[in-house]
Amino acid sequence: MRTVYVNGEFVSEDKATISVFDRGFLFADGVYEVVSVLDGKLIDFGGHCGRLRRSLGELNMVFDTRDDELLDIHRQLVEANGLKEGLVYLQVTRGVADRDFAYPPAETPATLVLFTQQKTLLDNPLAESGIKVATVEDRRWTRCDIKTVQLLYPSMAMMEANTAGAHDAWMVRDGLVTEGSSNNAYIVTADGTIVTRDLSSLILSGITRRAVLGCARELLMTVEERPFTVEEAHAAKEAFVTSASKFVVPVVSIDGQPVGDGTAGPVARALRKAYIEEAQRFAV
Amino acid sequence: MRTVYVNGEFVSEDKATISVFDRGFLFADGVYEVVSVLDGKLIDFGGHCGRLRRSLGELNMVFDTRDDELLDIHRQLVEANGLKEGLVYLQVTRGVADRDFAYPPAETPATLVLFTQQKTLLDNPLAESGIKVATVEDRRWTRCDIKTVQLLYPSMAMMEANTAGAHDAWMVRDGLVTEGSSNNAYIVTADGTIVTRDLSSLILSGITRRAVLGCARELLMTVEERPFTVEEAHAAKEAFVTSASKFVVPVVSIDGQPVGDGTAGPVARALRKAYIEEAQRFAV
Repeated sequence: MRTVYVNGEFVSEDKATISVFDRGFLFADGVYEVVSVLDGKLIDFGGHCGRLRRSLGELNMVFDTRDDELLDIHRQLVEANGLKEGLVYLQVTRGVADRDFAYPPAETPATLVLFTQQKTLLDNPLAESGIKVATVEDRRWTRCDIKTVQLLYPSMAMMEANTAGAHDAWMVRDGLVTEGSSNNAYIVTADGTIVTRDLSSLILSGITRRAVLGCARELLMTVEERPFTVEEAHAAKEAFVTSASKFVVPVVSIDGQPVGDGTAGPVARALRKAYIEEAQRFAV
Repeated sequence: MRTVYVNGEFVSEDKATISVFDRGFLFADGVYEVVSVLDGKLIDFGGHCGRLRRSLGELNMVFDTRDDELLDIHRQLVEANGLKEGLVYLQVTRGVADRDFAYPPAETPATLVLFTQQKTLLDNPLAESGIKVATVEDRRWTRCDIKTVQLLYPSMAMMEANTAGAHDAWMVRDGLVTEGSSNNAYIVTADGTIVTRDLSSLILSGITRRAVLGCARELLMTVEERPFTVEEAHAAKEAFVTSASKFVVPVVSIDGQPVGDGTAGPVARALRKAYIEEAQRFAV
């Protein structure tokens, strides 16, 4: 039985509850972050805290727990659950109030929930085999830059992709790939250029994306941040995704068509290795 | 202290909790309905049950509580809270599961929550004074026909409207009005035609909308279901909104410009009267 953090208390997971009047439950009025854990240490904790603050700011959500307090809670939870490798999930909502579309008074205490998930991240077999993706229409709202819990559509998209025999979806808006259900999407063109969607309100600014693009530049790879079409993806030499829990995972098929020779490519392999080394070096 | 229904039990509102692992909380993977209560009786209960079943079906959500059981729960809750006038809120989610974008197994029990809110519906002063609306860009997903709890944007839009001195937002996609934050939007043109957006995946199929359009046709009013522009709205003779909790409420100003003479108009008044009479006649 896991230990879960809810509003200042560490409780057994079967006792981890929130009010039915929580705005996270009634209005999806909440934001979240997922931090990876390797060897019991947190990966890119500062990056996730920074994005959390931005999400909260965009929604005018008052949350007075400091980053050092959040770090402390993360560490206590990792310790309490003996977590060596996996994830820490954190969610902040606008708190509990009688149901009303208008926000409750700013002094309403935010809800803070954290839990862990044990998961094999380093020896993920998909890093070798690669994943298959299926393109799905991107029907989400147009503030995907805010990491809210409005995740129903990514969830539906993943189920649609699964039905099509794929592991995950690549969402497409106006013929251009935005991102995966919970990861950023990349292709490598014939001339070896890494292409990934530029940041805008239509995609999430991935913490792993930023680090991986940094690694690519250090490895003197050419990176273009711009939209790419489904046709470009089908013609790509290589493709991959990045996320906090996947790091870098190759995409070996798109809509049933193999990408390149249909196996994990060298760019994805090199970036996965470089990213993991850097992540472990700066883990806290 | 209200009595709230949670998964088969009637509990005090301070004890009404759900798991932090509920998919309604983590993924906004839930749907809802709001039924009005007048004189202790439920308004258009069958219509709301029908729409609930449609929302569940669109999301492949398994929910095995029958309509007659839901009616029984509604009535018990109205009774327990001595509710004469107000609302019954109902939410169904895909239930509790460890966090994963993929849906949990279909046999996972759905979560069912109901609570009441006391509210003055008949003698609503806004029915006389009318409301002011401000147009706001519609940034929602494109499955607004499913009544999910992904309500963060309507909530943000209402706050933006409030900041602009208005009671509510009218959301606008590609220059065309879709709907209000939680109501359908109507204008009356110079020649007396009632215009409201036609049903599609971009708006919710209002239960009150359907009934009010029925009343309009019985009163031999001309109704056009089609998109209308913000410019048409500004030029309208009259405007109004409908919802389960508002019934029919006039809109007297749009973006600070008065609609018609800036007071509640005759079409909205006639429809409010006709709708309330019909609603009470068929209340259960």
